[in-house]
Amino acid sequence: MAERTLLPFVEAVDNFDPRYAAERGFARWYLDETYTTVIGLIPQSTLQAMRGWMESHGPTFTVVWDETIRSTTVAFSHGIDSPKRRTEIMKDLCEEWRDGGLFPDEIGGRKWRNEQYTVYYHPYADLRPENVAFTMERAACKLFGVVTYGVHMTMYRRVDGEVRIWVPTRSRNKQTWPLYLDNSVAGGIPHGMSPLDSMVKECEEEASLPPDLVRAHIKQVSSISYFTQNAEKWLEPEVQYVYEMFLPDGVDAKPAPSDGEVESFEMCNLDDILEKMHAGKFKPNCGAVIIDFMIRHGYLTAENEPNYLEIITRLHRRAEGYGPVPKESSH
Amino acid sequence: MAERTLLPFVEAVDNFDPRYAAERGFARWYLDETYTTVIGLIPQSTLQAMRGWMESHGPTFTVVWDETIRSTTVAFSHGIDSPKRRTEIMKDLCEEWRDGGLFPDEIGGRKWRNEQYTVYYHPYADLRPENVAFTMERAACKLFGVVTYGVHMTMYRRVDGEVRIWVPTRSRNKQTWPLYLDNSVAGGIPHGMSPLDSMVKECEEEASLPPDLVRAHIKQVSSISYFTQNAEKWLEPEVQYVYEMFLPDGVDAKPAPSDGEVESFEMCNLDDILEKMHAGKFKPNCGAVIIDFMIRHGYLTAENEPNYLEIITRLHRRAEGYGPVPKESSH
Repeated sequence: MAERTLLPFVEAVDNFDPRYAAERGFARWYLDETYTTVIGLIPQSTLQAMRGWMESHGPTFTVVWDETIRSTTVAFSHGIDSPKRRTEIMKDLCEEWRDGGLFPDEIGGRKWRNEQYTVYYHPYADLRPENVAFTMERAACKLFGVVTYGVHMTMYRRVDGEVRIWVPTRSRNKQTWPLYLDNSVAGGIPHGMSPLDSMVKECEEEASLPPDLVRAHIKQVSSISYFTQNAEKWLEPEVQYVYEMFLPDGVDAKPAPSDGEVESFEMCNLDDILEKMHAGKFKPNCGAVIIDFMIRHGYLTAENEPNYLEIITRLHRRAEGYGPVPKESSH
Repeated sequence: MAERTLLPFVEAVDNFDPRYAAERGFARWYLDETYTTVIGLIPQSTLQAMRGWMESHGPTFTVVWDETIRSTTVAFSHGIDSPKRRTEIMKDLCEEWRDGGLFPDEIGGRKWRNEQYTVYYHPYADLRPENVAFTMERAACKLFGVVTYGVHMTMYRRVDGEVRIWVPTRSRNKQTWPLYLDNSVAGGIPHGMSPLDSMVKECEEEASLPPDLVRAHIKQVSSISYFTQNAEKWLEPEVQYVYEMFLPDGVDAKPAPSDGEVESFEMCNLDDILEKMHAGKFKPNCGAVIIDFMIRHGYLTAENEPNYLEIITRLHRRAEGYGPVPKESSH
């Protein structure tokens, strides 16, 4: 199946190692002054804006140099200790930055999504309510390097025994990756919504697929996780809940553009898809989901992919250092 | 599907965090005195035996205290720099220990397997020949905490639309986990054999399944990896290449005991299997492979398993610190 290694597509999304965050100027963001839970990595530009914000709003964050880890650390200050209070502060801060024209390419104008995303105590444990640390505006997540969560679905049929996947072309008007190829349906997980409900909602909004049809045929089969530093140097550790929807003969559902996120859908076989991946036509994290599909379905194996283990372990990694700080650590 | 979380079965195999290895007295084993590649973690008892061996054989290993990482380090000494030379030394050392009655519960008598396992420069990259650091006796691997590789296969049918898996009971005479339940077929990967060939060989030896049948129906679908410290405190980081063999109606192959490794085979549905898992009847790493099966087939989801992400990320982890030492690390 694979004539050349698919590792570069994994490296394209998993291109940051948080062990070097301090050396690259990122401050470790702890949830509070007990310094027991890391929720993000904050770049210098954000840190400077936080200092500016505190000049008029008081010491909401504690910024300290930690000699042991040789890194600046940031924490919500003493007393700011509930999800509600943290959410309020992040809302005030992000809206003031937006209105003041800070980070216009990230949160200005149409970039502001008006969608609350969840930050968890333990970003790789689960999405239970008791694991919620606070919520914040989706577009602002990258300013703080918090882990974000999405859903990806591969919708496929079998034609003459061959797998055919529905591949959308992203709208020319998308804020990110316009006209790139994508997975059949994909989107983010807004606060308070389960992965499955988010997936069903995206299927309707992006691909005109009726919820009943989707719930009858969809199957959750995996999750992938990786740590991206994007072209603008923002950190974006991500988790994608992965679904498949196999449509048997006789079920004639077809995806169709609906909300303007997608230009068109095309059915492609795996050779087509690989060719388009190698030609750089896919949004990078979609390539990662396709690789996961090819592993699960036996197209990519230890025999035909020299980097099989490297691909699998890196597509399911945790961003090192995030979450609860291990108790027995020497740090 | 899952009424209670399956995380404990993952924790049963993934129960060691190598970040604390130094605190627990394990010495970091580097391939050579450039100290650029970690291949294992050596406990004090093994280290003492290595020192004893060097008294009569000369300074084959360099043992040094590294203040920065606060750990003893071991490395093949200068000049012992080829896979061939390292293999010879490990062979001499292990055979002398065996003949001298050292570590009788690990390498004495029937415990000695007479099977060469491979140690890789990068244990989570791939199994290419150029990645081979050396080979050593299978039974001795745990004395040094090197990563070992195995194959696991789930053989299943559909009966009345329900998945039924062939579950073997391990022989009462097995050296490890006698009379426990196992995956349909499983085994180790001997040096020089590919994962698929190892799998096909085990299918014939353990389950009387003809190679032609196996090659026609088997599919590689995953790999899992975890870090076990066993009941006797030895470290066993493992990688399992995961296969499935679905037998459609009309293909009547049944597994049958052959080489005395298995007492009997029984066909079980997933509820049976879960009940037996919770009752402690499965060999622990087989539980992990079954969980991976349940995820891939949509029985275990983010909605019915509160620790979905934790399970997936921990079943595909790398033992931290193994392999090439990251260049930019300050340790």
